Amino acid sequence: MPERVAYINGKMVPESQATVSIFDRGFLFGDVGYDVGRTFAHKPFKLEAHTARLLRTLKYMRIDPGLSAQEISKLSLQVIEANLPLLDSQEDYTFHQRVSRGLYTTDNPLAGGPATVILYCQPVKFASFARGYTEGIHLVTPSVRRTPPQCIDPRVKIHNKANHILADIEAKLVDPKAYSLMLDVNGHLAENSSANVFLVREGKLLTPGKLFVLEGISREMVFKLARDLGIPIEEGELTPYDLYMAEEAFLTTTSPCILPASKVNGVPLPRKVPGPITQKLLSAWSALVGVDIVQQALRHLK
Amino acid sequence: MPERVAYINGKMVPESQATVSIFDRGFLFGDVGYDVGRTFAHKPFKLEAHTARLLRTLKYMRIDPGLSAQEISKLSLQVIEANLPLLDSQEDYTFHQRVSRGLYTTDNPLAGGPATVILYCQPVKFASFARGYTEGIHLVTPSVRRTPPQCIDPRVKIHNKANHILADIEAKLVDPKAYSLMLDVNGHLAENSSANVFLVREGKLLTPGKLFVLEGISREMVFKLARDLGIPIEEGELTPYDLYMAEEAFLTTTSPCILPASKVNGVPLPRKVPGPITQKLLSAWSALVGVDIVQQALRHLK
Amino acid sequence: MPERVAYINGKMVPESQATVSIFDRGFLFGDVGYDVGRTFAHKPFKLEAHTARLLRTLKYMRIDPGLSAQEISKLSLQVIEANLPLLDSQEDYTFHQRVSRGLYTTDNPLAGGPATVILYCQPVKFASFARGYTEGIHLVTPSVRRTPPQCIDPRVKIHNKANHILADIEAKLVDPKAYSLMLDVNGHLAENSSANVFLVREGKLLTPGKLFVLEGISREMVFKLARDLGIPIEEGELTPYDLYMAEEAFLTTTSPCILPASKVNGVPLPRKVPGPITQKLLSAWSALVGVDIVQQALRHLK
Amino acid sequence: MPERVAYINGKMVPESQATVSIFDRGFLFGDVGYDVGRTFAHKPFKLEAHTARLLRTLKYMRIDPGLSAQEISKLSLQVIEANLPLLDSQEDYTFHQRVSRGLYTTDNPLAGGPATVILYCQPVKFASFARGYTEGIHLVTPSVRRTPPQCIDPRVKIHNKANHILADIEAKLVDPKAYSLMLDVNGHLAENSSANVFLVREGKLLTPGKLFVLEGISREMVFKLARDLGIPIEEGELTPYDLYMAEEAFLTTTSPCILPASKVNGVPLPRKVPGPITQKLLSAWSALVGVDIVQQALRHLK
Amino acid sequence: MPERVAYINGKMVPESQATVSIFDRGFLFGDVGYDVGRTFAHKPFKLEAHTARLLRTLKYMRIDPGLSAQEISKLSLQVIEANLPLLDSQEDYTFHQRVSRGLYTTDNPLAGGPATVILYCQPVKFASFARGYTEGIHLVTPSVRRTPPQCIDPRVKIHNKANHILADIEAKLVDPKAYSLMLDVNGHLAENSSANVFLVREGKLLTPGKLFVLEGISREMVFKLARDLGIPIEEGELTPYDLYMAEEAFLTTTSPCILPASKVNGVPLPRKVPGPITQKLLSAWSALVGVDIVQQALRHLK
Amino acid sequence: MPERVAYINGKMVPESQATVSIFDRGFLFGDVGYDVGRTFAHKPFKLEAHTARLLRTLKYMRIDPGLSAQEISKLSLQVIEANLPLLDSQEDYTFHQRVSRGLYTTDNPLAGGPATVILYCQPVKFASFARGYTEGIHLVTPSVRRTPPQCIDPRVKIHNKANHILADIEAKLVDPKAYSLMLDVNGHLAENSSANVFLVREGKLLTPGKLFVLEGISREMVFKLARDLGIPIEEGELTPYDLYMAEEAFLTTTSPCILPASKVNGVPLPRKVPGPITQKLLSAWSALVGVDIVQQALRHLK
Repeated sequence: MPERVAYINGKMVPESQATVSIFDRGFLFGDVGYDVGRTFAHKPFKLEAHTARLLRTLKYMRIDPGLSAQEISKLSLQVIEANLPLLDSQEDYTFHQRVSRGLYTTDNPLAGGPATVILYCQPVKFASFARGYTEGIHLVTPSVRRTPPQCIDPRVKIHNKANHILADIEAKLVDPKAYSLMLDVNGHLAENSSANVFLVREGKLLTPGKLFVLEGISREMVFKLARDLGIPIEEGELTPYDLYMAEEAFLTTTSPCILPASKVNGVPLPRKVPGPITQKLLSAWSALVGVDIVQQALRHLK
Repeated sequence: MPERVAYINGKMVPESQATVSIFDRGFLFGDVGYDVGRTFAHKPFKLEAHTARLLRTLKYMRIDPGLSAQEISKLSLQVIEANLPLLDSQEDYTFHQRVSRGLYTTDNPLAGGPATVILYCQPVKFASFARGYTEGIHLVTPSVRRTPPQCIDPRVKIHNKANHILADIEAKLVDPKAYSLMLDVNGHLAENSSANVFLVREGKLLTPGKLFVLEGISREMVFKLARDLGIPIEEGELTPYDLYMAEEAFLTTTSPCILPASKVNGVPLPRKVPGPITQKLLSAWSALVGVDIVQQALRHLK
Repeated sequence: MPERVAYINGKMVPESQATVSIFDRGFLFGDVGYDVGRTFAHKPFKLEAHTARLLRTLKYMRIDPGLSAQEISKLSLQVIEANLPLLDSQEDYTFHQRVSRGLYTTDNPLAGGPATVILYCQPVKFASFARGYTEGIHLVTPSVRRTPPQCIDPRVKIHNKANHILADIEAKLVDPKAYSLMLDVNGHLAENSSANVFLVREGKLLTPGKLFVLEGISREMVFKLARDLGIPIEEGELTPYDLYMAEEAFLTTTSPCILPASKVNGVPLPRKVPGPITQKLLSAWSALVGVDIVQQALRHLK
Repeated sequence: MPERVAYINGKMVPESQATVSIFDRGFLFGDVGYDVGRTFAHKPFKLEAHTARLLRTLKYMRIDPGLSAQEISKLSLQVIEANLPLLDSQEDYTFHQRVSRGLYTTDNPLAGGPATVILYCQPVKFASFARGYTEGIHLVTPSVRRTPPQCIDPRVKIHNKANHILADIEAKLVDPKAYSLMLDVNGHLAENSSANVFLVREGKLLTPGKLFVLEGISREMVFKLARDLGIPIEEGELTPYDLYMAEEAFLTTTSPCILPASKVNGVPLPRKVPGPITQKLLSAWSALVGVDIVQQALRHLK
Repeated sequence: MPERVAYINGKMVPESQATVSIFDRGFLFGDVGYDVGRTFAHKPFKLEAHTARLLRTLKYMRIDPGLSAQEISKLSLQVIEANLPLLDSQEDYTFHQRVSRGLYTTDNPLAGGPATVILYCQPVKFASFARGYTEGIHLVTPSVRRTPPQCIDPRVKIHNKANHILADIEAKLVDPKAYSLMLDVNGHLAENSSANVFLVREGKLLTPGKLFVLEGISREMVFKLARDLGIPIEEGELTPYDLYMAEEAFLTTTSPCILPASKVNGVPLPRKVPGPITQKLLSAWSALVGVDIVQQALRHLK
Repeated sequence: MPERVAYINGKMVPESQATVSIFDRGFLFGDVGYDVGRTFAHKPFKLEAHTARLLRTLKYMRIDPGLSAQEISKLSLQVIEANLPLLDSQEDYTFHQRVSRGLYTTDNPLAGGPATVILYCQPVKFASFARGYTEGIHLVTPSVRRTPPQCIDPRVKIHNKANHILADIEAKLVDPKAYSLMLDVNGHLAENSSANVFLVREGKLLTPGKLFVLEGISREMVFKLARDLGIPIEEGELTPYDLYMAEEAFLTTTSPCILPASKVNGVPLPRKVPGPITQKLLSAWSALVGVDIVQQALRHLK
């Protein structure tokens, strides 16, 4: 059976042989900057933006990828194209860019290298989130707090996910299908382990400020779409109180784009999902990418 | 040329072929509990204590290793023994135990598995720290703070090292040979990226309390040796002020056991290294393990 | 049918007529200091200690009860005695002391009064917690944090329970039978909404220091019993990590005395409840009060 | 003599008989959501807004009032109307809405109920604050900090007032007529125990952001009036420095609407009260409600 | 040789005789409010703004200068004019205003006085910063945090500089020519020991909000110039991440006006200094004051 | 009239001529380490301990005094002896050691110097505190918090007293004779602006831990005397609750040694001052130094 290929340090290898040494800092320390985008109708969406954010992460981590932004984007594209023949026409890919500092040869992070560059793609896991569009997801605030910027800046995407994993574990105790909504060390709303959160209150979109959350590309899409649609949007400190009072709420992230919530910590939100503003954003996003985002996902349910 | 072997999920493989899939959560998320011990005169030191601590980490992370403590210790021993023939009589090994949650197949951390179990050993890198015994090391407090326990408990050993890496990078800006000494979010002394710190003041050993530091096995050795030697020892909150006022200071960790400091943030400590109390501890430790810890390392210089 | 009586401001009234004005500060602001003890074999246990703690709370709140400690204890005793005829011989009472600042007549809390003094007793609700002795309870850490001492000192017992109520609500989302174990604003272990927590690790009893927890009279009993039994006991900062690593854990509070835990955030504790140290404490407590604490409760099941 | 009546759980009772059971959670735990509005010229002002905020509080507390917003507003109106005959034409009422979770029958806050609903009205206490309009009030920052949102959200109005009471006590130590101005846990300006604060600096109105203060309906009135009057207004973090530098400052709350300050922690503010911007707001508010707010109050002095 | 004169409490004295008593609170406690401005082409720049800020500081400290703003400005002008004859035409002066609470005669800060008023001027030290315009400066974040507003408001200029001094010492360890960029207690960007920081990102100017930084007069100039030039400007919370991602960065303070950065914690900024936006601001500032700010400084090199 | 002399940089000068340049960093930045001791019966008490603490402060501040500990002690002694002839036999001196970094010639604190060394003595101001022994002092907790160790370590004695001055100002608002008792940033008890605090509760002495307080030499005396007298003593976190519950409380500092409190935030302490434990300590201290500490002070009243 034909197999997808991945790019590792200059070579295309079948996924089943795509590995890193156990002595790679990527494995040993999670010392990896990464980014993940997706295709719509088989075309990569905002590839340059993802590559740019990857380079910001790497700069913060002082990891030198040994490749320019153009080279990384070009290679990412080649990986997608190499794998498109294996993709059903109704499906789409996520594309992954991961750059480790390289083999562990010294304790001085500034002296390591060369980097280990890994690029691959995976079918979007529609079945894992499709039901969220119709039933709404359950947001749960765990007791574990989001790591503060003075320790590691939440705006960088790195392979250090223990904080998020602990949060997800706690959320799943409340409801196996729950999504965590982490609070920051002040107890303000922060983010899901791999998504940003938005609320609707009195017709306005509200979202936590940037300090405790990822600089999400999907988050920026919501800003752009909201501006285009004339929906007022405010960024700032929010607390669980705002969550309970929301008329609508949703997560936004690469694969599902927008995932509406129907419950927060067991308290139902007042509007049937997707609420009117969530729906407008989903429709505008679908229009922009030429794919009915919800329908594409729902086809995977049966 | 003969090559060391590593244990990966039931198989012994040459190190050059010791890899993990790029789809392993160990690589993708740093979702790995680990531990590292060393041998003295080719005998593993406190292997059971290391395995026990590994299991504590895994319990906290809800990673099921699929093996009992006895099995892990036994396998660790087999790995050491399999590699001893390649070790010079003057050398020693560190032994490594690393357990990842396994392949990434679901977003629910409680539903993953089976674990990826990796065991291997490496020659102690004496040359990298030997000069510290005679010249003393330089401790530098970076601006990056240690992740607080409400985010991830600093007492677990996991492959999420970005916080430590950022701290090391800042310390190296001051002095390429500096060792970071991180502060916690209150600005109290915490730990080095892979070692605990001790101070001597008015004949007493002082060390930060457990909340922001690793439950170090070397740290416990210092407690034990100090009690045996009648050196008073106190655990509690310390600040950089205590560091500047110290008569002696040292790091303690697996490979070098005890590494005396001669400078803190550019300020020389008053006593020639190793200071008298540091020396007593080093001698007692050497006696206990039947190896002259300092001499073994110094042989690797020049 | 005969009815229990309550003392309100100098009068004994049937419970069904025991009320406070809606203009009482006790109702309007929760401006009430209180304490609750219980009887063992119909004898009040540590009545003077409860009255003394009540007076400490009132002093902190600047509420003048208009009665001395002796008078309050004496009245409490009268209330118990007046109600004993209605108590089955196998049952016991909790006794309640509640002092409000009085009617709301001015915004100046120092100028109000006279106080509203309320004393009554209630049968111990054995059925509500009996199963905990045999099955163990489930401790869950909610995302809501315990109010810090710089806002209101957690050591005073007042009718301001919203913080605890929110915590209990979150814990019940995980498991309707769960007990909350609140964290303080640093994410350290604090207390249950009406009980203190103890852990056993390596044969030692551990419990959070006093700053974020009630000065529990049951907590002090555990200290006393542990000292009598030669069980080492340490008070200090603990985190959820300590909870996960505990060999045993229990809550302690007035009615059940000691309630062993079998699970923490879904993770089973290793020992069958009650663990050996918990059992020793329960036995010693039972011996001290002349009542088999566990058997008395278990009789209320089925 | 005729007496005002209060509504309690479906019945109108004379105030002297308006009571709650001592076993009501409202008394025992301050487990009550409430709201307070006032009439102007005997007409309730923003009744719907008060009811809506009451319902927000109840939702946050998971208290089910068993009545719709319309029903609560309608009943509130009935209570006001029932009591109007007892009100002098120059006087006005505050109206009070208080909903307790009901009798204490279980430790599970989600299982309690039915709620205890209490509605009543009281003459505005003009004499208690009238002198503030001409002399200005004294704002004092106590050492007690406002409870942070991660413990209880300051935006809910509940019968848990101990934090505010402690603050008021400290402020009264400086000056028996002082009003507390609490700081949040970061030392930023928060609120008075029952009012919001505004400053004027360089012609701009400044007020603390929402996170540590009540969502005041009077506060919103000030926003609306300021916008109508073209006075710029900014919401954000303020410190005592801003207070000392203010040209004008005032509290805003239901009964007095706007109460100008003449001193902060003993430091006089530069402008005679009411300052020009404060005066404009007072005039606009008076015009809006058809009552000269200041004159109505001043009539109660002598 | 002729000597500059200083004003001390009503007298003009030669600088070599300008002293304060060792019993002055200014010396004993740093109990001094101060301000520093400069001349451009021998004309004082924004003298009134400096005097006004001085008075704000004194009000916060409850120091009564015994002089009105007009008197202080007038005296400052007299001091400048008295010293101008000693100034080369290419040079300029900084002018200094310093008001101590006066001799230490009582422990009650409210009862002290009269104040000690000191006014003087000094040649701008062009040589000390000129190279920054062409090479760019190195910004380093020390581990010492900026004192928070709940201890002393960072917006007041007082002779308590230990916090800044410790920060500078740490920055100089990295690079003897480095400038400190302090973080606040949350790890957000605050300020240099005597300058404010600005970043350029995506064409926008970003600067930390006012809570942890001085109300800089140069900072306000940058706001004004940016508005005039149509450069968008945002004030808010920033972290070291923003610093690393900046396209341009600069400090702004009295003498150099704007000092561009070329490196942050060892990481080079992408644009050659001064970057285009920095250059625009420098040019506009130069035009405004009729002095080529950069050229004037560069003449002092070699 | 004969005048006391002070030592300044190698010279003895009459106090009326004892000055520092306005360009000294001691004046400009409070960049001074200092210490203050006193004589008993004209003999300096613990002079070496004061000199040693001065040197610790200077080390922390990286100020090089240019003199050894022995030299500083010897010079201090010479200053005392030079001034003894001017001292009445019933009086005593405080002796002062102050070392500034020297003239301000560079922005690099590591490059400055030489230091300005100032030594002098002053009659103990008995009249200012004598009444405290018989009436007890009033302790008041201001809203201003003690600067945390991550900004400047509270254990160093430097001429940066603004934080303490603001606290004293607030305490004096409550009562012109009040003494401030500052809280740390967590709201725990810290210290007075120039004294440490002790409480007595259940026969035990309690005092805040070292992190937010000065390493007081008087504080250490209390520890020593308590140990000699068999009074148990505990160091740790305390809150205002502990203060309100204290049976006795006192400040300890150089001149008065021990100053008993009779009130805290307006709440009277239960025992007449000095309470029995305070009295024991005062008596033991008097015996140790051969001076009746209380009587010596009381002679200055009338």
